[in-house]
Amino acid sequence: MRVLSGIQPTGPFHWGNYFGAISQYIELQDVADEAYYFIANLHALTTVRDKELLQQYTLDGAIDLLALGLNPDKAVLFVQSDVPEVSELCWLLMTGTPMGLLERCVSYKDKLAKGLKADAGLFTYPVLQAADILAYDADVVPVGEDQLQHIEVCRDIAGSFNHHFGETFTMPKGKVLDQSARVPGIDGEKMSKSYGNTLAVFDDAKRQRKQIMRIQTDSRPMDEAKEPDGDVLYDLLKLVAPQEQVDEIAALYRRGGFGYGDIKKALAEAAENYWAEVREKRAGLAAKPDYVKDVLAAGAKKARAKAAGVLERAQAAAGLYRS
Amino acid sequence: MRVLSGIQPTGPFHWGNYFGAISQYIELQDVADEAYYFIANLHALTTVRDKELLQQYTLDGAIDLLALGLNPDKAVLFVQSDVPEVSELCWLLMTGTPMGLLERCVSYKDKLAKGLKADAGLFTYPVLQAADILAYDADVVPVGEDQLQHIEVCRDIAGSFNHHFGETFTMPKGKVLDQSARVPGIDGEKMSKSYGNTLAVFDDAKRQRKQIMRIQTDSRPMDEAKEPDGDVLYDLLKLVAPQEQVDEIAALYRRGGFGYGDIKKALAEAAENYWAEVREKRAGLAAKPDYVKDVLAAGAKKARAKAAGVLERAQAAAGLYRS
Repeated sequence: MRVLSGIQPTGPFHWGNYFGAISQYIELQDVADEAYYFIANLHALTTVRDKELLQQYTLDGAIDLLALGLNPDKAVLFVQSDVPEVSELCWLLMTGTPMGLLERCVSYKDKLAKGLKADAGLFTYPVLQAADILAYDADVVPVGEDQLQHIEVCRDIAGSFNHHFGETFTMPKGKVLDQSARVPGIDGEKMSKSYGNTLAVFDDAKRQRKQIMRIQTDSRPMDEAKEPDGDVLYDLLKLVAPQEQVDEIAALYRRGGFGYGDIKKALAEAAENYWAEVREKRAGLAAKPDYVKDVLAAGAKKARAKAAGVLERAQAAAGLYRS
Repeated sequence: MRVLSGIQPTGPFHWGNYFGAISQYIELQDVADEAYYFIANLHALTTVRDKELLQQYTLDGAIDLLALGLNPDKAVLFVQSDVPEVSELCWLLMTGTPMGLLERCVSYKDKLAKGLKADAGLFTYPVLQAADILAYDADVVPVGEDQLQHIEVCRDIAGSFNHHFGETFTMPKGKVLDQSARVPGIDGEKMSKSYGNTLAVFDDAKRQRKQIMRIQTDSRPMDEAKEPDGDVLYDLLKLVAPQEQVDEIAALYRRGGFGYGDIKKALAEAAENYWAEVREKRAGLAAKPDYVKDVLAAGAKKARAKAAGVLERAQAAAGLYRS
């Protein structure tokens, strides 16, 4: 099994990112034969148009992943733009990608439906994504349910190339991430950057405590017994508190006669404990930028070696000259 | 002045290609400060889906240009796919190219108008073309009148990037080729590969003679005086015969009393003389494939050195990480 996943560097990871995706694909490094994880700065270009910000987000993304347990001895960690072979492969695939395939892709359709003007980068990014996947012969790509379409598009693009030029690419499969755990944002809606309701994984503990203390709760009387599941505080607590404490607080909800303030305090403390180790690890890594850069350079080297072989295969199949 | 031109390797050059374009941009090597000429095999991929054919056309294109006078000491000759930097730049430009710009491009619109299905490669090829031009800081691009739109699109794409990220790219200008000389095909229509009416530059003399002898002429009586201009035989003769002979034959047309058969013989002979030297040179080059490959490898090296500098500028402007 060869696993691949790309992470867009568009800002700090939040709890939703971590529990819904990152923690799960980092775990795959232990079972995969090879694992490739990259910071997708070429994709981020379609939305981040600020040089300093993109550079910072890119390096931050790498530091975050390392702090969260990505082990460079087990997995290849690199920055997308460090592998020119992917851009080369992107064009090769582009020439055989039917327009209709891209026109049906959700992110483009959504933008048009909102009456917004799209750039060619948004329209063609499924082709770059296909190149990302195919360049490493990845056969397993962990994705959210809503991203399965992109894997299908990648398979279609690879299939089209294979059809024209003979078997060239490994067909990838999507591995649907477990996103059953509800990760509510501080307003009770699904936690999402676009709703502005996130709790950051790597926030300062004091600031996060303040954020948690301000979470809106309902106005049912303290005495009333409540079902804990579906309550924003309880759902967040389940993610970060020890099982024993979760059970105690569930019992408290069902009995009634407690204040949300106490639950908030418990949540803030549990969060602080839960993230303490990775936050400390992150601070250590941030203080060693040269180490992180070395990891990325070594990762880029490994990734390029793999991608160069696949590109060569594709170029030979299509009849491209190599001097 | 830094000149750039790309030639699609989609088959043997015909007289129309030579007199309408190739001869003129080869001449520019003598007046330009730098000149870059490349075999555009990445563009050809959108139409040539045969591995052996594309490889052969690519190498043939290079040999043809060298035979026609392209001087590798004066101009940089290379194959497009040998410069990965162009594919990398293509994606950078893609992210800032409005869909509307590409939707207005003629070759895509034409295909749709004919009810044909287009691939994303045809739709986005103006972006790759822009990358081709901008990667070498080219400021002069010789084009046919009908291709001026692509230079405008390139300027728009460069302008959009410069606007977002600060002055990065040199703005190219189109230099319109002199295409006033009429180059009729053997059926009297404009010579064009798509009409199947071409005379190849590098054909075998005997076969070309046969082709010329079969050119359809009108059925006016031999005695009748005729206006030479506009007559397919005369228009072709003007391109390849010495001025003195052209004048003589023009007088013959105006006087009347001659047979088209004689004109055809004169044309076949003039053509044979005109192309003899380059055909011989071509045969010599074809017998030295290693020399041609060395030229292309040296060209690729020079082209990459130039393109790498421009790409680095663009990546830095956009905030892309480089390990």
